Amino acid sequence: MGNIVNTNAAYLAARCADLGAVCYFQTVVGDNPGRLESTLNLALSRADAVILTGGLGPTQDDLTKQTVAKLFGREIYRDEATCEALRAYFKRRGIACTENNFRQADIPEGAEILPNHNGTAPGIYIFDETKHVFLLPGPPNEMKPMFEESVAPKLSALSGEVIYSRMVKVCGIPESTAETMISDILEGQTNPTIAPYAKLGEVHFRVSAKACDEEAASALVLPVVEELKKRFGAAVYSTQENEELEDAVIALCKERGYRITTAESCTGGLISARLVNVSGASACFDRSFVTYTNEAKIEELGVSPETLDRVGAVSEETALEMAVGAQKHSKAEVAVAVTGIAGPTGGTPEKPVGLVYVACAVKERVWVRKYQFGGNRAKNRENTVTVALAMARNCILEYDGVIYHQEMI
Amino acid sequence: MGNIVNTNAAYLAARCADLGAVCYFQTVVGDNPGRLESTLNLALSRADAVILTGGLGPTQDDLTKQTVAKLFGREIYRDEATCEALRAYFKRRGIACTENNFRQADIPEGAEILPNHNGTAPGIYIFDETKHVFLLPGPPNEMKPMFEESVAPKLSALSGEVIYSRMVKVCGIPESTAETMISDILEGQTNPTIAPYAKLGEVHFRVSAKACDEEAASALVLPVVEELKKRFGAAVYSTQENEELEDAVIALCKERGYRITTAESCTGGLISARLVNVSGASACFDRSFVTYTNEAKIEELGVSPETLDRVGAVSEETALEMAVGAQKHSKAEVAVAVTGIAGPTGGTPEKPVGLVYVACAVKERVWVRKYQFGGNRAKNRENTVTVALAMARNCILEYDGVIYHQEMI
Repeated sequence: MGNIVNTNAAYLAARCADLGAVCYFQTVVGDNPGRLESTLNLALSRADAVILTGGLGPTQDDLTKQTVAKLFGREIYRDEATCEALRAYFKRRGIACTENNFRQADIPEGAEILPNHNGTAPGIYIFDETKHVFLLPGPPNEMKPMFEESVAPKLSALSGEVIYSRMVKVCGIPESTAETMISDILEGQTNPTIAPYAKLGEVHFRVSAKACDEEAASALVLPVVEELKKRFGAAVYSTQENEELEDAVIALCKERGYRITTAESCTGGLISARLVNVSGASACFDRSFVTYTNEAKIEELGVSPETLDRVGAVSEETALEMAVGAQKHSKAEVAVAVTGIAGPTGGTPEKPVGLVYVACAVKERVWVRKYQFGGNRAKNRENTVTVALAMARNCILEYDGVIYHQEMI
Repeated sequence: MGNIVNTNAAYLAARCADLGAVCYFQTVVGDNPGRLESTLNLALSRADAVILTGGLGPTQDDLTKQTVAKLFGREIYRDEATCEALRAYFKRRGIACTENNFRQADIPEGAEILPNHNGTAPGIYIFDETKHVFLLPGPPNEMKPMFEESVAPKLSALSGEVIYSRMVKVCGIPESTAETMISDILEGQTNPTIAPYAKLGEVHFRVSAKACDEEAASALVLPVVEELKKRFGAAVYSTQENEELEDAVIALCKERGYRITTAESCTGGLISARLVNVSGASACFDRSFVTYTNEAKIEELGVSPETLDRVGAVSEETALEMAVGAQKHSKAEVAVAVTGIAGPTGGTPEKPVGLVYVACAVKERVWVRKYQFGGNRAKNRENTVTVALAMARNCILEYDGVIYHQEMI
């Protein structure tokens, strides 16, 4: 019905990839015996191992075990040790254990019971000559630890291969340009493979290789990562899966002992909030300014009323004055300022919706750049946040003399 | 590979259900022509309509159109109008349109082109005697509006029934309490149905009815909506699908000619950014303050150093002084202030991670409330944003004498 987002699927896909088990298909099917059986049959026909989540609970529409047992021609028995664990679980919580709860102790014959330390329904592992089937509970806080404890070691042993992957995260280069820059590498890739993912204002390339062990796999991956870093130069802000653009900006500031501030008009605090995403941002983040009206820009940042009169709030000059003013009104060495027309209204022929100026001051130097986005209000603002963070990063590097003249989006 | 959570699937399932189209299967498959073709074949064998998302982009691994065209025996042509739109799109943004971008203008013969107002890849609709196939872009911010504009009307016409639904959006009441308050209505519901959706700090009830036409369906829905509004009183902030909490807050301010400002510590600008989500926020939003350090709270908001010394930054007193200070340092009648410990570090036994104080000033009156959240850094901050917006709304109403004493979260 769409009221639950399937986060289990992403978790399992990522972990299977780590373990060298290639996941080609994911299917979602309701608690209907016929559709469940046909789905499981199809899955078994095309895979060596099938992981099922959900449908192990105590209610009548929890049918997974019955369906799997029928398909493998196994009888179901009620496992006394599991019943005992259920009684103990409910007693500890001081609530009555109703009869239907014991349905969770029904196990197909010959199956291995996988312990559940975070809930009542145990998992089940069935091995039938060539096929491996894992039945895991649906709630992510039960499924994930059970996967790690009982499924991951079995999958790893089965695959006999390891997949090693690294992310090359590029900011400030459009996806199509980025791909053109490495088209010779993208063509004819087999092992490692290079998969591009476009994000707003960013492109991520996942470089993955398979081999017999991690050392061999990483030996295939790392030279390609190095080559991508060479091609994209300073536009690569990270090769770590979990490092976001704001992490990179805060890290650069920390290394240099800089503080960073923002002066925001159309983004309304989004850039500042991204910086505060970083745990420990307080080492280099102190305050920032959201100045939506002209009056606010004048009073909080010292933007000149004459500038606003002459060229308007959405202009190179105002962006520059906002950045310099933010620096002056805080103790930050680095200030990023944005002013633009997010839309849907407020555009004119000379200053259309999507026009944004981003300025960045690093100590005594200051840069400004014009962008024309083509999205709706939300997208124009999100794009602005990304280019502003990318610009902060690039300007800090350029101040240091790391040449960086890549045109930004 | 598991680095993207499939939120499209949940959205499509929910919307199909609304439109009377029953969704029995969802399959995820990679950009591989063979596996894509077999998946599509299977889907067509068991459904009247198939919705595909993703794989319409400019890169070599975007294969959906080619696979679908082959399966239906259609040639592919390059659509000149789409090429023109692409050129205009890139020109507006002042960047070069590389050759591979025109792959997005490749259309199977006889297909209907579905406009994409939020990106470059158009959608495609193919009707082949009995089967309906929709190809939509992968990014949710492009997929969702295209679904609403071009797919929903077609699905609705196919299902032969009309579903009419309204949302009753409740803020500041926990999900379980809210459900208990209407348990007699929830029990035994058939037509209309009432589906609760829990969001951070909010509960939404979708009331839907099926009938032969919209008039008959709405006649079933509206009395239930009225009853829910009676039960939840002022906690209902909207009955519109697209109206968010920030829209409700800005609307209340506009009606009263109030300006609103924020003073944010742990949220780092998120509340302010939510207010600026509202197009036309400038009528009642002027500026806001992100004050992360004590120094910033003192200098920007006039929080007393003595208060900070005595009870610390995360305290009732500091929250109150932040709200009053934000009011004083701007021209706003309404000020919302938050200070808390988002985590993962910074907690103590007396002030654990997740402790947040929210204060709200409306003209000469001021309120403060303590919250203890139990999530990670991101979730604690998001929860804070929701309760802060809900509190702003409630305090504005309470100032007016609309009695509202519902306990929040």
